[in-house]
Amino acid sequence: MSKVRVNSFSLSLEGYGAGPRQSPDEPLGVGGEELHNWIFPTRTWKEKDGHRGGSTGVDDGFVRRGLENLGAWILGRNMFAPSRGPWPDDGWKGWWGENPPYQTAVFVLTHHPRQPIEMAGGTTFHFVTDGIEAALARAREAAGSRDIRIGGGVETIRQYVRAGLVDEMHLAVSPVLLGSGEHLLAGLDLPALGYRVAEKLQFEAAVHVVLTRAA
Amino acid sequence: MSKVRVNSFSLSLEGYGAGPRQSPDEPLGVGGEELHNWIFPTRTWKEKDGHRGGSTGVDDGFVRRGLENLGAWILGRNMFAPSRGPWPDDGWKGWWGENPPYQTAVFVLTHHPRQPIEMAGGTTFHFVTDGIEAALARAREAAGSRDIRIGGGVETIRQYVRAGLVDEMHLAVSPVLLGSGEHLLAGLDLPALGYRVAEKLQFEAAVHVVLTRAA
Repeated sequence: MSKVRVNSFSLSLEGYGAGPRQSPDEPLGVGGEELHNWIFPTRTWKEKDGHRGGSTGVDDGFVRRGLENLGAWILGRNMFAPSRGPWPDDGWKGWWGENPPYQTAVFVLTHHPRQPIEMAGGTTFHFVTDGIEAALARAREAAGSRDIRIGGGVETIRQYVRAGLVDEMHLAVSPVLLGSGEHLLAGLDLPALGYRVAEKLQFEAAVHVVLTRAA
Repeated sequence: MSKVRVNSFSLSLEGYGAGPRQSPDEPLGVGGEELHNWIFPTRTWKEKDGHRGGSTGVDDGFVRRGLENLGAWILGRNMFAPSRGPWPDDGWKGWWGENPPYQTAVFVLTHHPRQPIEMAGGTTFHFVTDGIEAALARAREAAGSRDIRIGGGVETIRQYVRAGLVDEMHLAVSPVLLGSGEHLLAGLDLPALGYRVAEKLQFEAAVHVVLTRAA
């Protein structure tokens, strides 16, 4: 069966997955982009951005693996837009321009209905108002035998983990202090939820950890 | 001037510095000893334990550095004893036997007075009832030009960090899930407190990070 995955999710040294005070200028919160500095130099990322070169080691391997065999994505509302509440009539189509990096169906969790948005490159944003399990059911249908990736943010991942719906998590601890932010793991009893460390640390510019959930 | 340091302080993937439910059998809480698995195979640790051999790489370098130039230690009450409240008449002299690994004056924070205990090997436990600053003043006097190491636990380190009294912290993130425990960094705004990442990650069996506080 297809898996539900979290990949390349970067944490600060404090365990925060995003910085505070998200805004249109700082989609990952203040300081949040720095969390992902290990991703940008990799060959896989550069290729996705239309560039050549880049590193080909452990970091790159995790970025590539995170993009393999994906049939659908799920995102929280805040990962899609800086607005809150009912959708404003602002033509917002995500943070990523006309050709978003997803290239699959993307299910956005929201309390406020909205028509799907078809983008270039195979990405279509669907807005799901009836909860995380409904979004996952729709994602499974769209993905077929391929996997579903929960892109974030922190609260969305926590909801899916708490519900026992995430099969595999790859987390990357970056050498970054954010000071405040949203904590990914605090208060989640991962062993009690069935998770264990399945792959030991590998290292280049971040610490890579893969968690899997026992069946 | 001598520095106040935290060294070789191990964190779980969730950021916990100790497991839950400390007891005489589990001084580091349930599962807590696993946090320190990166330390035991090092040459410096083995030598301290009277054995030969051991690893001599990055892990060992950090263990050794953590023990260099120390003139005094500060410990929280719970790092010294499993009892709580007024000292019971149980002859407890710490978790470490007759010859504790400190070999300096050790100032134990407590609300309950107690006479000093002189141990073999140069360790003397002093019990300080008038707070963290008083303990530090006494440690500075004992240490002279050498450094003072805050051994823990989590709450003791958090108090010293919040008060701006720790100059340098080396944290080691271990590939371990504890599920619950005491979080070292959550809610501490380290950049606002003047800390920055001073040494990039080095890696062997744990991620090593050194934080320093701006003067």
